[in-house]
Amino acid sequence: MADIIIKNVYVLTMDSYELTQGVVVIENGTITEVAESTEQDADQIIDAKGSVVMPGFVNTHTHAAMTLFRGYADDIPLDEWLKNYIWPAEEHLTDEDAYIGTKLACLEMIKSGTTSFADMYIHMNDVAQAVKDSGMRAALSYGLIDLGENRSADVELSKGKQFVLDWKGEAEGRIITMYGPHAPYTCSEGFLSKVKKEANHDRVGIHIHVLETESELNQMKQQYGMCSINLLDRLGFLGPDVLAAHCVWLSDDDIEILRGRGVHVSHNPVSNMKLASGVAPVPRMLDRGVNVSLGTDGCASNNNNLDMFEEMKTAALLHKVESLDPTVLPARQVLEMATTSGARALGIKSGVLREGYNADVIIVDMNKPHLTPVYDIHSHLVYSASGSDVSTTIVDGRILMQDYEVVCMDEQDVLDRARTAASGLVERAKF
Amino acid sequence: MADIIIKNVYVLTMDSYELTQGVVVIENGTITEVAESTEQDADQIIDAKGSVVMPGFVNTHTHAAMTLFRGYADDIPLDEWLKNYIWPAEEHLTDEDAYIGTKLACLEMIKSGTTSFADMYIHMNDVAQAVKDSGMRAALSYGLIDLGENRSADVELSKGKQFVLDWKGEAEGRIITMYGPHAPYTCSEGFLSKVKKEANHDRVGIHIHVLETESELNQMKQQYGMCSINLLDRLGFLGPDVLAAHCVWLSDDDIEILRGRGVHVSHNPVSNMKLASGVAPVPRMLDRGVNVSLGTDGCASNNNNLDMFEEMKTAALLHKVESLDPTVLPARQVLEMATTSGARALGIKSGVLREGYNADVIIVDMNKPHLTPVYDIHSHLVYSASGSDVSTTIVDGRILMQDYEVVCMDEQDVLDRARTAASGLVERAKF
Ligand SMILES: [Zn+2]
Ligand SMILES: [Zn+2]
Repeated sequence: MADIIIKNVYVLTMDSYELTQGVVVIENGTITEVAESTEQDADQIIDAKGSVVMPGFVNTHTHAAMTLFRGYADDIPLDEWLKNYIWPAEEHLTDEDAYIGTKLACLEMIKSGTTSFADMYIHMNDVAQAVKDSGMRAALSYGLIDLGENRSADVELSKGKQFVLDWKGEAEGRIITMYGPHAPYTCSEGFLSKVKKEANHDRVGIHIHVLETESELNQMKQQYGMCSINLLDRLGFLGPDVLAAHCVWLSDDDIEILRGRGVHVSHNPVSNMKLASGVAPVPRMLDRGVNVSLGTDGCASNNNNLDMFEEMKTAALLHKVESLDPTVLPARQVLEMATTSGARALGIKSGVLREGYNADVIIVDMNKPHLTPVYDIHSHLVYSASGSDVSTTIVDGRILMQDYEVVCMDEQDVLDRARTAASGLVERAKF
Repeated sequence: MADIIIKNVYVLTMDSYELTQGVVVIENGTITEVAESTEQDADQIIDAKGSVVMPGFVNTHTHAAMTLFRGYADDIPLDEWLKNYIWPAEEHLTDEDAYIGTKLACLEMIKSGTTSFADMYIHMNDVAQAVKDSGMRAALSYGLIDLGENRSADVELSKGKQFVLDWKGEAEGRIITMYGPHAPYTCSEGFLSKVKKEANHDRVGIHIHVLETESELNQMKQQYGMCSINLLDRLGFLGPDVLAAHCVWLSDDDIEILRGRGVHVSHNPVSNMKLASGVAPVPRMLDRGVNVSLGTDGCASNNNNLDMFEEMKTAALLHKVESLDPTVLPARQVLEMATTSGARALGIKSGVLREGYNADVIIVDMNKPHLTPVYDIHSHLVYSASGSDVSTTIVDGRILMQDYEVVCMDEQDVLDRARTAASGLVERAKF
């Protein structure tokens, strides 16, 4: 007897075929059958007529707990934002704040169809606990910085390592740990090398911000006489274990290095537009075969929500107008970035509906005015849908939301506690 | 006794003040009071605790009935899209199709907080009937083209005039009529002059596409030795009665002409990005004092939905990254474009919550994970919210949707009929 059968549904496998009418069978956290029909029975049968079942989204770059700073300071330059608003506020962030901020992020992600995410932040034990409690899957890392006042490379590295070891494989394997050196301009050369060594030793991946802004590019050139990609490559840092967020200011040579080393890229178009960072050369990366996935970045000043539908549409639109070519980043390719490419970047067996894969699955309700009529499922998912069209979210075979009802946490309680935490932060930080 | 009192609500008047906690009183289709509290009573009291009440959105450029072609052909060049897909399909469009397509558009707009829109299309009697039946407010025009095969300038003009006169002020004044010369490259000089004369005579406005693509700019230069704006100005066509959609390929001189003549511009960022048309110089237009409003364009290949929240966010993001300046188009300014500037463009007394203005009002539910916590209402509405957060929509003092329930039409019936119409079109057009 299986656990769950989803039937009467358009099956967007993100594999090499699709089923206009089919079933997905789930047992023990795993997809056990994808077919036109099944002989099996299950504890729970979900009749999803008029819907699409597909892999859940993989958000490959965010800072979940920053939901608490959502919309706190917008439309101002990055420097001012960090120095006058975010850093002072983060100093006052408590463990409890990080827990409830992450819980809020998980709630939002579950409601909008994201099943896995990659995070880099502080107070990571509390972040991990919130992920564990929410039922989501995540690749977590403590954000390491050795440059700047009051920083000790050794203390940072041991905190990062402790987290990596404490939480590796926790929550029935839903938690993956990584090292999270913040960026080449906030970490010294020697520190980056040490981090790489530890990551190899502990057999975990590395999550890092790379070339988000032109000012990073200029600073690196001045300091090292080369850009961040060249520096990292010279250190032997780059490989298929590295997840590089942003990658906006890349030369063609940089792209070739990323491809050659098998580095995974997280493209964050909404954040890059909102902070006016620039436009990443995504079509060129895709042409060369770099694995480009999608991320929202944190929702403080960067994105203000964690909706991967919005990220997909923005990616598709931005690169069309940037290249003045309407055929660039077609809907199917963008869907791949948000699902299969993301899963590959995190090294998880998700992102496709296939036997033996994680049952990280969502159901999108197409019986909506803005999704009527239907000619092309891919097009609707990328250009017409939004997070609020997701009716059901399943992670690791467990239903977290069914028919728009979140069942893995008390939604109103999370909202109330997040509001209390936010007002406490404002007061403590004397904004 | 008033008709409706909305109370316990954050009042975003879009006027010079806001109320953290206030009331909006509606009587006979008009806003009669906006205050912290009221002594009045009403037939219906809406307690909107945890919500924002604000003017409904004004979508200043769309082709509503094209909802039937939503997602029918994407990610292909404009030429191919028109010639192989849209034009053949439109030839088979019946009056009934146009009616149900517009009804679907109205349903979608009502659900996402749009209360008024400007439309230019064919089968306009049926479009107008759908607007009348739905309860929305609209500025409607028959799309006039005299160049090309099988076109007669006289027949076109008389069709346009008939529509202008038949429907002017209908539906208790909710319908405004306009002349809709399609574009300077599909209408001859002489025809444009005639249209202008008739519009003056009938005291109605003019809705026209202008400089959407670089190819229009090149064609006009070749044909007339000047761009569309210069040609229209030489014809005495431009004035505060003109609503010009797109305006992507403008020089600084063109902007000065638009400002000097008081022309209203409809900026359609999602469409311009999706079709790779280019980036309109919106920050420069706003700096010079041009009235720039927002439109979605049709949802065939252009936008794929009619969500003005998406249009606001895209506008705010696009011009930040285009100018590499994160302070460009701040949230408050974008909200003005989507409400007050749109109302001014259509010459309607909406777009602001003020005594004596049309009761075109929406309530946005802020008790959502992706809208928690709240620091800045403007920021949340532009960067975090989506159409699905609108709980209540009121047009001309009549409730069209209350607490997420559409009460002005049978939602499921509209969806079913739209699906039937779409499958009929596909069959008739032998796609
Ligand atoms: Zn980041
Ligand atoms: Zn148009």
